[in-house]
Amino acid sequence: MTRRRWIADEHKGDTAALTGTNAAHLARVLRARVGQQFDISLGTHIRRGTITSIAEDRVEFTLGEELPSTAITPISLYLAVFKFDRLEWAIEKCTELGVAKIIPVIARRTEPHLAASAAKRVERWRRIALEAAQQSRRAAPPEITEPVKLKQTLEAVGQRIVLAETEQQNMLRDVLEASEQSREVSLAIGPEGGWTDDELTQFDQSGWQRASLGPTILRAETASISAVAITLSS
Amino acid sequence: MTRRRWIADEHKGDTAALTGTNAAHLARVLRARVGQQFDISLGTHIRRGTITSIAEDRVEFTLGEELPSTAITPISLYLAVFKFDRLEWAIEKCTELGVAKIIPVIARRTEPHLAASAAKRVERWRRIALEAAQQSRRAAPPEITEPVKLKQTLEAVGQRIVLAETEQQNMLRDVLEASEQSREVSLAIGPEGGWTDDELTQFDQSGWQRASLGPTILRAETASISAVAITLSS
Repeated sequence: MTRRRWIADEHKGDTAALTGTNAAHLARVLRARVGQQFDISLGTHIRRGTITSIAEDRVEFTLGEELPSTAITPISLYLAVFKFDRLEWAIEKCTELGVAKIIPVIARRTEPHLAASAAKRVERWRRIALEAAQQSRRAAPPEITEPVKLKQTLEAVGQRIVLAETEQQNMLRDVLEASEQSREVSLAIGPEGGWTDDELTQFDQSGWQRASLGPTILRAETASISAVAITLSS
Repeated sequence: MTRRRWIADEHKGDTAALTGTNAAHLARVLRARVGQQFDISLGTHIRRGTITSIAEDRVEFTLGEELPSTAITPISLYLAVFKFDRLEWAIEKCTELGVAKIIPVIARRTEPHLAASAAKRVERWRRIALEAAQQSRRAAPPEITEPVKLKQTLEAVGQRIVLAETEQQNMLRDVLEASEQSREVSLAIGPEGGWTDDELTQFDQSGWQRASLGPTILRAETASISAVAITLSS
């Protein structure tokens, strides 16, 4: 499922159009041709679009079959709160990559002053996600929830994977491939210093699987981006 | 190949030791136990190490068999020069992930003032890579070369993959899996705005394969990190 997806600027019946910068990008940079097909997001659903005309500031499509909107794995990212500048990078990058939902988690090793001010930061994180969504031409930004405690994290759905520095055997990709569960995936990324043993035990007991991102030690924001990229490519 | 790798702080014959913060991390955070095995980097080679004693500031190993040092895919990252703050993030993150070599490339769409000052930035990029290598406990930082023109890029070795926003069909992971070439991989990441058609044609003619990172549009630094994470996990 690699066809480029565009959000329609205009839509009426079985036709849609891109205008402005989207049209210019498609026409000039991507050198679109009449007859080429793209996936066109119409807000509530996605249809196959075939280009019927191209101008500098307007590209028109006829719309065909409706497509499954879950073309990419829906990922819920449970992100332990860590240093805000780096956390904001993780939010921006993971939004570009296409996560569906970001849940900030107050972990045992989240620094107390960050935990105390996390709730006041949520609006800012939503703005960052909105800008990143627009820049990457996503249909909509990911939902960003209020910060939650670990207990609420444990109730996540789909295949649940906690990335753990202490995991020595199972690589994320192998854990993903071994699963026959639904395509929905929850990923939990610890703070700097990682999850505590006690937290990992709670994850275990709630049916989460542990996975490793490899032999080097990654900062939390690097682990977030890598885990999402690998999950989306699996 | 997921066993954690450590760089020995001391090494003599068939014994090695970690000291200071490395020892403390292994002993306290990772709760190492006598008898556990890790890969120990001795600078020029890597051997299997078995823990024989643990103290707060010193963990000792006996050394066994020598291990292939190319346990992870050697990646050469041809990184078009883009905005320096974002480029530096890409260098830091890709170093953490473990790229072997970073080659800054002056691309057609590299902004002229960045192209002009790139050569003066190389020493700074090397410092950033060195710090990131130490932080992630890599054996050594990646080599960072002087900036090169596209022509020199085209001569890269191993499986050569150019990430292209205009590629609609082939996903990076599929391109990697379809290959029976050596495990060495060269990845080329374009600047903001992407490679030009002319540049992509030159890549084609030199035997590079085009690949996509998926349906959303990624900033250059996000594409870099994702491409490296996916390649290492393949």
